[in-house]
Amino acid sequence: MSDPPSIITLTTDFGLQDHYVAAMKGAILAVNPAARLVDVSHAIRPQAIEQAVFVLAAAWPYFPPGAIHVAVVDPAVGTRRRALALRTATATFVGPDNGLLSAALPDDVRAAAGDSPAPVGLPAGCRAVSLTNERYFRSPVSSTFHGRDIFAPVAGHLSLGAPLENLGEPVERITALPPFRARRQPDGSLRGRVLHIDTFGNLITDVRVEDLRSRNAVMEVAGRTVEGVSTTYEPGADLRAVTGSSGYLEIAAPGGSAAALLKAALGLTVVVRDSSLRSE
Amino acid sequence: MSDPPSIITLTTDFGLQDHYVAAMKGAILAVNPAARLVDVSHAIRPQAIEQAVFVLAAAWPYFPPGAIHVAVVDPAVGTRRRALALRTATATFVGPDNGLLSAALPDDVRAAAGDSPAPVGLPAGCRAVSLTNERYFRSPVSSTFHGRDIFAPVAGHLSLGAPLENLGEPVERITALPPFRARRQPDGSLRGRVLHIDTFGNLITDVRVEDLRSRNAVMEVAGRTVEGVSTTYEPGADLRAVTGSSGYLEIAAPGGSAAALLKAALGLTVVVRDSSLRSE
Amino acid sequence: MSDPPSIITLTTDFGLQDHYVAAMKGAILAVNPAARLVDVSHAIRPQAIEQAVFVLAAAWPYFPPGAIHVAVVDPAVGTRRRALALRTATATFVGPDNGLLSAALPDDVRAAAGDSPAPVGLPAGCRAVSLTNERYFRSPVSSTFHGRDIFAPVAGHLSLGAPLENLGEPVERITALPPFRARRQPDGSLRGRVLHIDTFGNLITDVRVEDLRSRNAVMEVAGRTVEGVSTTYEPGADLRAVTGSSGYLEIAAPGGSAAALLKAALGLTVVVRDSSLRSE
Repeated sequence: MSDPPSIITLTTDFGLQDHYVAAMKGAILAVNPAARLVDVSHAIRPQAIEQAVFVLAAAWPYFPPGAIHVAVVDPAVGTRRRALALRTATATFVGPDNGLLSAALPDDVRAAAGDSPAPVGLPAGCRAVSLTNERYFRSPVSSTFHGRDIFAPVAGHLSLGAPLENLGEPVERITALPPFRARRQPDGSLRGRVLHIDTFGNLITDVRVEDLRSRNAVMEVAGRTVEGVSTTYEPGADLRAVTGSSGYLEIAAPGGSAAALLKAALGLTVVVRDSSLRSE
Repeated sequence: MSDPPSIITLTTDFGLQDHYVAAMKGAILAVNPAARLVDVSHAIRPQAIEQAVFVLAAAWPYFPPGAIHVAVVDPAVGTRRRALALRTATATFVGPDNGLLSAALPDDVRAAAGDSPAPVGLPAGCRAVSLTNERYFRSPVSSTFHGRDIFAPVAGHLSLGAPLENLGEPVERITALPPFRARRQPDGSLRGRVLHIDTFGNLITDVRVEDLRSRNAVMEVAGRTVEGVSTTYEPGADLRAVTGSSGYLEIAAPGGSAAALLKAALGLTVVVRDSSLRSE
Repeated sequence: MSDPPSIITLTTDFGLQDHYVAAMKGAILAVNPAARLVDVSHAIRPQAIEQAVFVLAAAWPYFPPGAIHVAVVDPAVGTRRRALALRTATATFVGPDNGLLSAALPDDVRAAAGDSPAPVGLPAGCRAVSLTNERYFRSPVSSTFHGRDIFAPVAGHLSLGAPLENLGEPVERITALPPFRARRQPDGSLRGRVLHIDTFGNLITDVRVEDLRSRNAVMEVAGRTVEGVSTTYEPGADLRAVTGSSGYLEIAAPGGSAAALLKAALGLTVVVRDSSLRSE
């Protein structure tokens, strides 16, 4: 127990039917047979980088410090996109440089990306390298499965204590997605969107609970109006706005699926009006 | 290996696409990085407590003594339903007090519930506590995700040896579901129902194999008659009644799906007539 | 770390909704609480032995030497099909004798099966036993779930170092599937088929990359012609033939699903003509 826990998590769009996830796990264990592997999700929609960022960002903070988080949603595998390892004060992230590692970055850093994915400078206390040292790869490296041949063995070596600097050249900027955060409009409302639809059909929006001015807010979504913000999914209304466990406002249908009820899709607009504001 | 194995299993309706299961696992590992995590199922239908009880009860007895089984199907999360830890002679169970922990209870104890979920007294040798000691929780506790903020860290502490008594107040009665057991009718038949439909489309009924009086029984289901009870899924008939591996009678379609063939749904009635009885 | 890693992988058609996989894991851990369990796939189509062979063969070589691979796709469970353990120079395999353990065998050995599954002699350096020693089983053994009652505990004992010979009688021949390898036709073309459709909708064929004579080959599939073999899924064409990471030629739709685009099913014919050949 004096050793680091060697926890390695995996977030991919590989699904669970094929051999891909297992081949990655084998490649990690071939480097470090004592690594402790934990799946975050392998059901990211194919090539849905934003969804992967949301899911990983909602999971990794609960792991013990020192955990290594590997994320592979990698439509440009085998092209010239860089492969990265990023170390923050509490965790290490490994994945392609396509915005995925935004999951590790605070909002103020991501905000530098502007309105679409773009390179941003690393925050203080973070270091990153471009994974170029082939000594830490499997050999040969396939051109279509860097998860198995680069990211997995690199994570294995990191879990054994390999210094980040040995893995490749230092990197000053990495690709980031804009923050998931609805913006306050001139009229005082928050205009957000559905960021994620979970397995219960809850619509998780990019409206931050901390940005709400009042529990008496009124939500407009898909032509419906929801009054007030609840703290639970308690029955009694067909739709509720709920303060979600990851800090985002959710639209939920207690006992059912809000996604089905509202025929909602990702990106659906959600407007929040603070009634306290209106009463002023 | 002289330590307890620290095995913690998880049974939820969280699905595998979202961050929920991983956040729970992180929260366990943050307390006990050496915990060994095993998924029972995360594909329980949303809020289907009975299905969770069936699945967990069919899995946990095969784990080594001392394992901790966390179950979270929790539609009333954040309301006044209690959170429990229950210790039996061979295992510990953690979850909401909504009937889920029936999986740990023998039939004769569950029978005290009558015809619907109700509080029952604990059997001899069992102890339970209401989880109220916030020292064992994550902080802050969200109102919608006690899996991550209460049940996971409590399981982590239990796996480190925290005494059950420290976690909260002793509880004498917990909510239980009636036993899964078809009843003998006045005419001598057993009248049961489909309790679970498995991934192969087998219809697992609440007719206990030990309650069959003869292998020559005749089953009636969805307008069909099946003669005789088989011990395997061997081909040769489009439908078979099979003595299932969990002790329940199953209706199976060798090489296919009985659920599809019979357009069966949960709750479908299955009547078993002992032909030996009729010939008497 | 001086001990063997005790890694046990699982490949089944049990799905993840039911208790089956967890019961197997419990039964392994009941024998060896320190076993490290890794899922290969539990989403093999029901009773699809060939798919299981493909997936397991694409995953196991990446695991460290000494790993134990348990495969259970077992339509004939409880009948007289044999249960086997097979040890090669680098790994141990456990499963029913129905062709599944082909995943462990080289092509030249599988070729002895001819055109359909048949017994083949073991290659040099391999040993196999028929699992008949009930001391290594759970008791009682159900007739429908040997995964839990035979294969799991046997794998647990093997991971603790039980000698293969103790588990049952030596076996000289085991059932194998023919190799997954498209054959060269009299006209010089390779005539193959779709062996597996992955989660991205890529069509993985039985055409081996090493059998291609040129990167200028022309593929014919579902009435479409694809010119040239790519090394990545890079955009720029609606269909690409790609050298896949497991050594098989794939038909892919960059950014989409080739399976959907071509309405492809398993077994679909793929013909590869070497243009270099035609120009000779």
